[in-house]
Formats: sequence, C-alpha cells, structure tokens
Amino acid sequence: MQYSYLGRLSRAGVQIDLFRCIRRTSGVKHIFLKVPSHTTCRAMAKSKFEYVRNFEADDTCLQNCWVVVRLDGRNFHKFTDQHSFKKPNDERALHLMTKCALTVMEELSDIVIAYGQSDEYSFVFKKRSNWFKRRASKFISHVVSQFSSSFVFYWKDFFKDQSLLFPPGFDGRVVLYPSNQNLRDYLSWRQADCHINNLYNTTFWALVQQGGLSNNEAEERLKGTLAGDKNEILFSEFNINYNKEPAMFRKGTVLLGQKVEEAIDKQTTTPDAPEGINVMVKRTRKKILPLHVDVIGDGFWEEHLEILADNS
Amino acid sequence: MQYSYLGRLSRAGVQIDLFRCIRRTSGVKHIFLKVPSHTTCRAMAKSKFEYVRNFEADDTCLQNCWVVVRLDGRNFHKFTDQHSFKKPNDERALHLMTKCALTVMEELSDIVIAYGQSDEYSFVFKKRSNWFKRRASKFISHVVSQFSSSFVFYWKDFFKDQSLLFPPGFDGRVVLYPSNQNLRDYLSWRQADCHINNLYNTTFWALVQQGGLSNNEAEERLKGTLAGDKNEILFSEFNINYNKEPAMFRKGTVLLGQKVEEAIDKQTTTPDAPEGINVMVKRTRKKILPLHVDVIGDGFWEEHLEILADNS
Amino acid sequence: MQYSYLGRLSRAGVQIDLFRCIRRTSGVKHIFLKVPSHTTCRAMAKSKFEYVRNFEADDTCLQNCWVVVRLDGRNFHKFTDQHSFKKPNDERALHLMTKCALTVMEELSDIVIAYGQSDEYSFVFKKRSNWFKRRASKFISHVVSQFSSSFVFYWKDFFKDQSLLFPPGFDGRVVLYPSNQNLRDYLSWRQADCHINNLYNTTFWALVQQGGLSNNEAEERLKGTLAGDKNEILFSEFNINYNKEPAMFRKGTVLLGQKVEEAIDKQTTTPDAPEGINVMVKRTRKKILPLHVDVIGDGFWEEHLEILADNS
Amino acid sequence: MQYSYLGRLSRAGVQIDLFRCIRRTSGVKHIFLKVPSHTTCRAMAKSKFEYVRNFEADDTCLQNCWVVVRLDGRNFHKFTDQHSFKKPNDERALHLMTKCALTVMEELSDIVIAYGQSDEYSFVFKKRSNWFKRRASKFISHVVSQFSSSFVFYWKDFFKDQSLLFPPGFDGRVVLYPSNQNLRDYLSWRQADCHINNLYNTTFWALVQQGGLSNNEAEERLKGTLAGDKNEILFSEFNINYNKEPAMFRKGTVLLGQKVEEAIDKQTTTPDAPEGINVMVKRTRKKILPLHVDVIGDGFWEEHLEILADNS
Repeated sequence: MQYSYLGRLSRAGVQIDLFRCIRRTSGVKHIFLKVPSHTTCRAMAKSKFEYVRNFEADDTCLQNCWVVVRLDGRNFHKFTDQHSFKKPNDERALHLMTKCALTVMEELSDIVIAYGQSDEYSFVFKKRSNWFKRRASKFISHVVSQFSSSFVFYWKDFFKDQSLLFPPGFDGRVVLYPSNQNLRDYLSWRQADCHINNLYNTTFWALVQQGGLSNNEAEERLKGTLAGDKNEILFSEFNINYNKEPAMFRKGTVLLGQKVEEAIDKQTTTPDAPEGINVMVKRTRKKILPLHVDVIGDGFWEEHLEILADNS
Repeated sequence: MQYSYLGRLSRAGVQIDLFRCIRRTSGVKHIFLKVPSHTTCRAMAKSKFEYVRNFEADDTCLQNCWVVVRLDGRNFHKFTDQHSFKKPNDERALHLMTKCALTVMEELSDIVIAYGQSDEYSFVFKKRSNWFKRRASKFISHVVSQFSSSFVFYWKDFFKDQSLLFPPGFDGRVVLYPSNQNLRDYLSWRQADCHINNLYNTTFWALVQQGGLSNNEAEERLKGTLAGDKNEILFSEFNINYNKEPAMFRKGTVLLGQKVEEAIDKQTTTPDAPEGINVMVKRTRKKILPLHVDVIGDGFWEEHLEILADNS
Repeated sequence: MQYSYLGRLSRAGVQIDLFRCIRRTSGVKHIFLKVPSHTTCRAMAKSKFEYVRNFEADDTCLQNCWVVVRLDGRNFHKFTDQHSFKKPNDERALHLMTKCALTVMEELSDIVIAYGQSDEYSFVFKKRSNWFKRRASKFISHVVSQFSSSFVFYWKDFFKDQSLLFPPGFDGRVVLYPSNQNLRDYLSWRQADCHINNLYNTTFWALVQQGGLSNNEAEERLKGTLAGDKNEILFSEFNINYNKEPAMFRKGTVLLGQKVEEAIDKQTTTPDAPEGINVMVKRTRKKILPLHVDVIGDGFWEEHLEILADNS
Repeated sequence: MQYSYLGRLSRAGVQIDLFRCIRRTSGVKHIFLKVPSHTTCRAMAKSKFEYVRNFEADDTCLQNCWVVVRLDGRNFHKFTDQHSFKKPNDERALHLMTKCALTVMEELSDIVIAYGQSDEYSFVFKKRSNWFKRRASKFISHVVSQFSSSFVFYWKDFFKDQSLLFPPGFDGRVVLYPSNQNLRDYLSWRQADCHINNLYNTTFWALVQQGGLSNNEAEERLKGTLAGDKNEILFSEFNINYNKEPAMFRKGTVLLGQKVEEAIDKQTTTPDAPEGINVMVKRTRKKILPLHVDVIGDGFWEEHLEILADNS
C-alpha cells in the first residue's frame, strides 16, 4: 500500500505528519490515513495534555511603572555564623554580593540602578522595559537565579581558601512603583534601613568585641538608646567616629552604569609608519561602577538625571 | 536637664525611644521630649519612606490547588555548546540536574513530587501547603535560587576536571492545578514532551554522529517523519532499539520520597553484655529517590496513592 | 491630480484609507499619499492613544474552578428603613430578590445554581464555563448590572403602590472554588449564616413587636443566648414554633434549573379532522424553580447529582 | 443543675456563649459546659464552613495610580432597535446616560472626572483614593450597579411615555494609569473614538434617511472614505456642516465638579425685623456639571488644573 504525503498537521505545538492512501474496492473509494504507531499515539497524547498550559496566569507588570526586584538571603543569620563572617561587616561578603549584582546587571536587560546592603540587593528595571513582556515571574526568577549561581561561582574570588559549605538560597519579590518619587522613596527606605542597622550593629559589636560585654549585656545596654547615644558610646568608649566608618558600611552600595574614559592601545598605520604602529587613544564607554553615596537627598539624583529621565 | 525614659515608640518597624523632661517655669508646666539628633531624624525618615511597602501586591496562590513551579535553563543551547555537552544526552548534566532538584526538595518544604528532563525541572507543592503563606513569588524564587546555587556548587561532582565557565541562569514560573487529573495531565505533558524530543534527538544525532550527515542534512531527512519512521531509521540503519535506550533519557526523572529499609549498627546493652555491644538493626526511613518510569499511565499512581491522597 | 486607491491601512483598530498619486517631474517620480484632512489627523491621533489599552490587566479566572459571584445590598439597613420593610422578613423584598436572580440566570450563561438570603445572592458558574473567556470583571459586572436594573424594573410587581425612592446599589465579588466540597461548603456557609441571622431576627422582633420591648431591651435580652434559648423564648413566650416558620425565611432560596412537565395545546390534523384540532400534549422542559431546602446535608446533592457532575 | 455564664467564645465570626456548671461527686470535680442544642450545632457548623473565605483573592489596585472604571451597554445594538432610538444620536438616551453617571458620581466617593459617549461611560477615581481599600471588584461593582439601577429608575424622566421593555445590562472593567499623561491619553482615546464613530454614523444615517440609500448601499458608499470625504458628503449632498452638529454628539460628555454661584433665600433677623426676614444671599458650592468640550488638547487641562493636581 503506497502512501502519499498529505502535509503536516500542527496542533498545540505537536506536529503530526499525515499520509494518505486511496484504494478503490469494488467501486468504493477508501481513504486510509497512515495509522500512527505506538509512539505517535504518545505524540497525540501530548496534544491531549497540552490544555494544562491554559492554567498559567498572566502576571504582566503594569505598564509605565518602575519594576523593582529585591532579593534577600535565606536564613543568612545561620549562614554567616557557619561561615564565620566578620562582624559587624564582612567586606569579603559585601564585595561578593556586589560582584553578583554586577553579573545580574550585565546578564539581564533594562536594569538602570541597583542598591544593596547586608544580604539584600534591589534591582530597578526601567519603566518602559518590555523584557520578557514584563512578566513578574521572569523578572523575579532571572534575577534570583543569576544572583544565586554567581554567589557560588565567585565565592572563591573573595573568600579564597575558606570553603563554601553548602549552596545558599535567596528569596525574591517584585514591586511596582508608578512615580519617580515612589522609586526614590523606595531606595531611601532601604538606605535608611542600612543606616539604622549598621549603627546598631557597629555599636553592639564594639561593646562585645572591644568592651568585653556578652551579647545579652550589649543588647541590654543598647535598649532604649537613640542614634545620638550610640554615636556617643562609640566615640567616648571606643574612640570610633561613626561618620568615618567606611561608606560602604554606612551607605550600602549603589550600582550604576557610568561613562568612563579609557586609554587603549590601538594599532594604526600612518604615512610615516605604513607597517603599523600602536597609538594610545582615549575612549569613553559605559561601565557599571559601585558607589557608596547618599541616595536620600536630592544631590545624587541631580547628578544622575538620566536615571529618572522620561525615556527610561 | 534630666530626662526620664518614657518608653519606646514603635511605628512602621522603626523604634524611637522617647525621653521626657518636665520643667515648671513661673507656674507653667513644660514637657520636653528629647529631641532626636541628626541620626534619629534619619530614623524618622525611614518611617516616612515605609509607605512604599504598601505597593507590594498580594500574590497568594488559590487554596486547595496543586502548586507547580517549573524552571528551565536560560540560553542552555549556548551553554551546552560552550561546555561540550555530549549529544543527544549528557549523563553528567542530567545527574547534576537531579542532584540540584534533590537539594531543592530537601531544603524547601511541602514538595511531594518533582519531574525533570533535559534542562527543565518541575516541583509540585502539596495542595494544602501553606509554606510562606502560599505566596507565588516565594515559591518561584526559593526553588530557582536553591536550584541555581546548587548547580554551581555540585558541578565539579559530576563534571570533574571540566570547568564551569560562567554562572548559568534558570527561569521559573508557577502554575496552579485544581484537580488531581489536571496535575497528572501536567506531568504527562512534560513526559510526552521528553519522549518526543528524545526520540527526535536520538535519531538526529545518530544520523550526524554515525551516519555522517551534516546537521542540515539530518534535519532535512527527519522532516515529516513519524515516530515509527524514526524508530525504523534507528533500528535499520544504526541497529539501535530505541526502547532499549536508557530509561532516564526516554522517561526523564521522577523524584519521590520513598520508604527505604536501612541496616544500621546500634549500640545497646544486654544482661550478657552490660558493657554494651553493637547490634545490627533495620530501620525504615523516608528517602527521596530518582525513578525513570512512566507517569502517563495509571500504574505509577496506583503504586503511589499517597501522592494524590486527600490530605496531601 | 488623480489619486488611485491603495488599500486600507488598519492599525490599532483604526482604518485609514490610502490613496496614491504618482507624478513624474523632469524624470523624477514623486509619490503622493493623499494627505488626511484635520479629521483624519484626529483618526491618527486615536491610534496614537490606543497604547492605553495595554494597561488593562488580564483577570482570567483559573480554569476548572467553580466561579462564584456574590452580591450584597449596599447600605440596605438604611434602604429597608426608608422603604418600611416588614421585619424580620419582608416577603415582597425576598420575592423581588429572587425575581432579579432569575433574570440574571436567564440572561447570562453557564450559571448552574444560585442561592439567596436577606439582601445577598450568590451565583455559581460552572467549572468549565468559558463565558467571556472567564474574565472576573465580566462575571462580576454582568451579574451585578443585570440584578440592579432588574431590581428597579420589577419593583412595582412586588411592592405595588409603594414607590421606590431612589436607585439602590449592590456590590459584588468573585471567588473561585477548586473542588466540589469547597463549593458545597461555600453554600453551607451562606445557609448557616441565614439560619443564625433569621433565628436571631425572628426572636428579636417577636420581643419588640409582640413583647413590647424596646430595641435595646430586646438586644440586651438576647445577649448570651444560645439557639436553644431563642427557640425557647419564641415557643414559651410567643407560641411560635420556629421550625414551622416559612422555609423561605429559615433556609433561604435555591434557584435551580429543573425539568418540569407541561401540558400544552397543540394544533394537529388527523384523518378524522383534516381541518385541524387542538390536542393536549405533555412536554418536558427545563425551568428555573425556587426551592427552600437544606443544602448543607447530603440529601440535596444526591437528589441533584447533575449540579456537581464532571461535565459541569 | 445551675449554670454560670462563662463568656462568649467568638470564632470565625460565630459567637457561642459558654455556661459552666461545676459539680463535685465523691471528691471529684466535674465541669459541664452547657451542651449546645441542635441549632447551636448548626452555628458551629458555620464556623466549620468559614474557611471558604480564604479563597477570596486580594484584588487591591496598585497605589498612586488613577483608577478608571469603564462601563458599556450589553447588546445595546439590539436594545436601541427595540426601543426605537433615534439615529444617529438619541438625545433622550444620551441625557439619561449622563443622569446615571451623575448619580454614580454623587453616590460613590473619590470620582474626579467622568467621560461618556454612545453607550459607554468612564469614571476616574483619584490616585490617592482608598475607597473600599482600592479593591477592584468594589470599584467595578459599585459603579456598574448604581449606573444600572439608575438607568431604569430615571428612564421615564427622559423617555416619558415610551416604556422600557426589559432591564438592560452593562459590563464594566477597571484599568490603572500610573501617570497623568497616561490618563489624559486614555480620555483622548475615548474622545477620538467618539469623533470617528459619530462622523461615520452621521454620514451613514444622512445617506439612509435623507439620501434614500439602503443600509447596505450606505455602507458600500462609505467604504474607503476618509474623514474629509465624509465631511464633503455631508456638506455637498445634505448641506450639513459637521462642525455645527451639537457638541454633545461630536465631543461626548465630560462630568466635572465645578464651583457654581447660587443665589438662595436665607431667613434672618435684623434689629429692624426681629420677627425674621428673607434675604437673598450668594453662595459658592460644588456642583457636577456636564461639558461637551475637547479633552485632547491642553486647553481643558490648563483650565482645570485641579483634576491632575498632586493631591488628587
């Protein structure tokens, strides 16, 4: 029995090729479609199951809003203990976090600014981003995944011989901010949080590490103290001027694409040197740089008008 | 001026300690609240910014539905090329994927079954799970994060001397299935997809690797072929019985908690041996095991009634 | 200058007809598109504005779930006072509510059962309904709109000479129930609510209307009473057997499509009566009927298996 | 056996009053809780069912966005035929629509502007509205319900002796607009739609009613015409200057709260008239007024700066 190719039937993502054979028996015309074997039945089964796709909800983020993804370390209190992080701040860990955030910004699209402190990082996608059709699950999962794999990948660059004992986890969320003011207030909120926690932690660990207090005693001592009190404790008891502590600890880290000037060697030919010579040329290119600056006041935003510009 | 402690004012997550000083001047009672210094102003600023929290949307998953999180490798076509994955299946990669999925199941709560194939894995949280209040972003981010960090962490256990060149990315999504039948159809859909792709890939790479065809020629050759045709090509031209290919390639991998019996040494004392002796005892415990079995038919589900049981 | 019709350009819902005129001037070919006049500029403006459509969120209800829309009277406490509703139950109002619900069931598609009590009504759309692509806003607005307009339209059929003083409002919400048990529990919840409120109200108004207590005194008297106590007060003080109160008050109203047998006159011809005679024939047709029955126990559901049937 | 009141147990919205009776029998202390009768069991049943409340999804609208609810007549093509609406515009119907929209604005809170044309009306809730906690279902259902009941209620004020044949339906949707420009573009979109449709309809019905064409002929005639062509047909064939058509037809209706000055009689007493006299006083109050003006250009918004003001 000879079959002729009829064409491909495409349904719900499954292609089934159809073949036809016509036979005439005692004047009656029979059409046979090539009967699929066991495996083709399975293929048809696939299309039978594909209705389950329709259960996926549309999670498109509202247009013309800033899309912020924030991730936080999961159980990082335990993680920092098990990996003997230096208290109150472990520079290796903060630099690793920033390296991961940089990787996220380079690998993903449309992130205009990121802000990190402690075990958290926030990424701001531009208002007009249409990356993956603005699907919330895509924003969250890509950020969290790239950050998590980078954390393990780059660990040894910052922690050297100290081993990573187990793969860490980060959770993520997405929040939309309609106005520029809302976005600025979001970043201010995170930086104010950084300030409050870091002042507390700096004082707490000074009391413990230099003052010889137990954790409980230090906690007791700090109960009810104001910021001014903590500054005073640091200064009078430990000779620490809080405002001279590293800006990275006090302000957290802002990541921002910035124009930088580079001097590069470029090979060229000149009438004098037809065989080619190296010339030093200057080039401006965009590079994401970490900053440890105040983002609560207006100064930062006036200096970087492009972040909130209309076409962002 | 002497201040007495008034108590702590807690608002929007910021604690501000209040101190009071009462003065009477010419019969008038003045109450001074200890004025916060610069840094406390910042603290108050934090509460001023905290309204931004209200922009976070509630993404609670509907009660009494199966919650499925599926993750997929990002740009894995390129990734497999750059890491010279064996075609059509790289056992090291499949085992690494399964190791990551195991880690996800052990670290997170309420996952009853997982299914993986190629560069994707699906995790099924039980209907009644209230993990992180059923927030979709938590389900997605925790799964994707734990999987991604594990992928880098366990890479060397499977790829030995071959280096991981860069941190990979995975995306994730969450889908709800109200009925048991819907959930079974979802898993059937993924397994049917595994079958179709693997049969195609097995034949394609046989044509290329053993048949000497170019990629384009192999693609051309397979155009319009049915499953039966591919089986036939494999068998007649390459002496490959597709049904004898490894089940892990053909069926993918099911991860399921199963009761296993273990023989362990236990120290005990007896009248005859008051100083203690080691006794071999058998113990039943739950262990997550990989299976490479059919989940489309009823057999699997009849054997594992507990998966879809009402109290799941 | 003669234009030839080029065709219609359809973009974003706006059709713009294009006309072309080609002129050659000193060997150069000019193509003129017929320039749209002022009004056509407006038309193009429309397409410029149409991006705002993309801000509409997808509110599709999850597949394979019962879709329940419940509406409640807005400020009905005030409404019943201003319209001198009979307390504790005004039959005219309850019948009007049911008439409106009937209209909703007849006008809209896919409603399998409705339940009403007091100033609320719940409508259950079948699991497999794809009415308006299962958009939540469509379910809510159509139900609430049809109910509200019917309330005013049919008012006079039940309240006769008593005027409706102003147009009333109803609010609505949509809730999804994945399993049959969830749906039954929802309806049980509403009927239990009916029972508790009606027993309270019946006793309260007996104390006030027949017992001569003030509203406050009656409230005081009922504080801390159990159902049994209220039954006792009704029986011993007012000779009311609560269980003999009208079922519509105690159970609320269930609306359900049911097969009814009708006797209709049909004109036919017979050999004996070639000129045609009227014959009485019986016909079965589906009609939505109000029931005042218990829906908490199993009886109702066993009697009406079709409601929860798989293909619903 | 004497019971003492223990207090009220409130769980999941059900109050159960508890009574205690303590008995000592042969030195053993027994505590009896008053056993609830049949009906109290039902009450407890209610709390057993109340878990279904948790299935209700949170549909809070994103903060700091304009909330627009648009309603449209359901099957109004049929409705207008059955009620013999005058074509292309029936003033009675347009005025009734506006009366309903006015009622919506007066009854509901936080609506700053509304725009209507044909059988649709859009209502804009202010950005900062927290009415019903910004729940989308509340916005939709209250608007649609109030509009629908008003449509029937006020019908006779506009259609006089012509009866309303059946209760009409309207559907509704909610859309969020983050920026002022987005909101303006939304309203421009609706007004451009009004313009295009009205110009078409005006020409179509002129051809039919005055030109004697059949509906099909008129449709054929208008195929491929531009706005300028339609203006030309109206002017040259029917002596109609489209721009002199009533603004309500061409522009639709804007509803806006505006300050109006009223002269009212106020009774007062003066030394000269201690018995009281009527004095005419002028008062400024806010009144919602219909306007038929262009909202696409800047003029309207410059004249009514308060609509888009920051504190809206």
